[in-house]
Amino acid sequence: MRAPEIRVAVIGAGSWGTTVASLAAVNTPTTLWARRGDLVETMRSTRENPDYLAGFRLPDELEVTDSMEEAVGSADVLVMAVPSHGFRDIAAEAAGSIRPWVPVVSLSKGLERDTLKRMTEIIGDEMPGRPAGLMTGPNLAKEIMAGQPAASVVAIPDSTIAVELQRILSQPSLRVYTNPDVVGCEVAGVVKNVIAIAAGMIEGMEFGDNSRATLITRGLAEMSRLGVAMGGDPYTFAGLAGMGDLIATCSSSQSRNNSVGLQLGRGKSIEEILDSMNMVAEGVKSSPSVLELARRYGVEMPITEQVVAVCHEGRSARDALAAVMARSNKSEFD
Amino acid sequence: MRAPEIRVAVIGAGSWGTTVASLAAVNTPTTLWARRGDLVETMRSTRENPDYLAGFRLPDELEVTDSMEEAVGSADVLVMAVPSHGFRDIAAEAAGSIRPWVPVVSLSKGLERDTLKRMTEIIGDEMPGRPAGLMTGPNLAKEIMAGQPAASVVAIPDSTIAVELQRILSQPSLRVYTNPDVVGCEVAGVVKNVIAIAAGMIEGMEFGDNSRATLITRGLAEMSRLGVAMGGDPYTFAGLAGMGDLIATCSSSQSRNNSVGLQLGRGKSIEEILDSMNMVAEGVKSSPSVLELARRYGVEMPITEQVVAVCHEGRSARDALAAVMARSNKSEFD
Repeated sequence: MRAPEIRVAVIGAGSWGTTVASLAAVNTPTTLWARRGDLVETMRSTRENPDYLAGFRLPDELEVTDSMEEAVGSADVLVMAVPSHGFRDIAAEAAGSIRPWVPVVSLSKGLERDTLKRMTEIIGDEMPGRPAGLMTGPNLAKEIMAGQPAASVVAIPDSTIAVELQRILSQPSLRVYTNPDVVGCEVAGVVKNVIAIAAGMIEGMEFGDNSRATLITRGLAEMSRLGVAMGGDPYTFAGLAGMGDLIATCSSSQSRNNSVGLQLGRGKSIEEILDSMNMVAEGVKSSPSVLELARRYGVEMPITEQVVAVCHEGRSARDALAAVMARSNKSEFD
Repeated sequence: MRAPEIRVAVIGAGSWGTTVASLAAVNTPTTLWARRGDLVETMRSTRENPDYLAGFRLPDELEVTDSMEEAVGSADVLVMAVPSHGFRDIAAEAAGSIRPWVPVVSLSKGLERDTLKRMTEIIGDEMPGRPAGLMTGPNLAKEIMAGQPAASVVAIPDSTIAVELQRILSQPSLRVYTNPDVVGCEVAGVVKNVIAIAAGMIEGMEFGDNSRATLITRGLAEMSRLGVAMGGDPYTFAGLAGMGDLIATCSSSQSRNNSVGLQLGRGKSIEEILDSMNMVAEGVKSSPSVLELARRYGVEMPITEQVVAVCHEGRSARDALAAVMARSNKSEFD
């Protein structure tokens, strides 16, 4: 007798949630949940998500629903693809239907504003007893949907669950690696959005590849300092969840965080920029929380400091860059 | 009484040698040596190096000569800015004039073909007793000449010398860091040119930021494995000499190695590409030597293997990519 298939529910039909649901649907029964009934109707009838992934066909096997109970109640794996500011409320809602032992995988890369909690900590609060993990890595949704070669990381402590998730999410063009370091992977995902804003600023000021590479390198250094202080594994930061995701995000015009930075570098105000976007730039919101964590753990994060100053305290990108260049530290690993 | 100034000689007037000479000339008496008398004449009369840095003005203070004896004989610091294949001959020539105790700084990022020796090892052979080091980092010559914000690394064991070199090479827009890990910095510089060819191939095949970021991340992993096996410090690879230089080189259309890879990815043959270039792509030449070192030290370098196959054994870029994607390794840090 064959064991029953693992059923997946993905909560949230933004670009990345829709992409991950599409990956899973090819391998195993999968349902994508969206809050908006009209979007569900459109996805059902056109087999496309025009709001977030126009032009990409959803796999025929993918089910779509706006019923949380229907999606979550039958799921053996729950994937949470909602922005960090709505994460706790939706987790609480899903908690009403989720069965025991079901692992919950976060796709969000932010921190809860007031508590500074990571998304897997919120899962622990709202759905206690469920193994919590995340999927991360250099994964720009549209490139994955286009079948370009890429790699991703599933971080969850239990290796049996990790291997099943790896199987469910893999594609010939997508290699999925496992990593037991949930804290490190999660901190990396949060901080990379902050550094991506700084990288965008450098580009917006029309500086070139040296400046950008230096910023990314020093950004990874401060990401690693914070992550290791919080209990993460240093190797995580040198891998796909750390360096890999950071490079992809800092290089891509598809990244909202990078794009916010780009416009800041060109001299636009943060209010103007945010008003013109219909998606969330996690790094803007999470930068003060990251800085607060850095202070709590006694870690220096000079780039994050400047991102906070530009995004929340009215400093210009040029003044921020000057502040970073003027630092007196002169031995690379002091 | 003030101590006499440190006089610098830079041997080789390619784009990076000319740039480093220009940096030093602002801080201390500096002479740039070029083999070709006509180029020396042109630089003297136009204050420009039209062959390698057209459009950038050389500092008025910079002396230019085609006399090795004149340049080297009075130097307190010798900077070697010649490609790896000519390095030993020119080092031997300079050895006839170099004074005792004078530190020698390599700017070359290659290996000697038959011996697999690093440039600082060749300095040790040809100019025994002189402290040998290198300058490296994410330093695309034209961006440095343009005064864009950047950072660089001087690697030499003696900290007194390191601090003096740091001072001589720094600019308001260029932060120079010190790092005592000569082996790590040198291996990083060599391997990054090989990985840059692979990154160029990915781009030439029109894959996007995920694929490139993944390639760079896995490339840094194999660079680190080799460097650590050879005695380098793991931190070096996470810093400017490792990751920083790798990102800049893999991102830049100014990199010859990246550009060779780009054309390979588009389906051109290596012969066609090399015929059309008037500069040296170090990674093409050094890739078989890197692979040989990897075998000697028992280290896996799957990307380097594929670069060797494409550049020297006629494999297509597409087949090389397929070979990398098909590997069975599935836990990131195995």
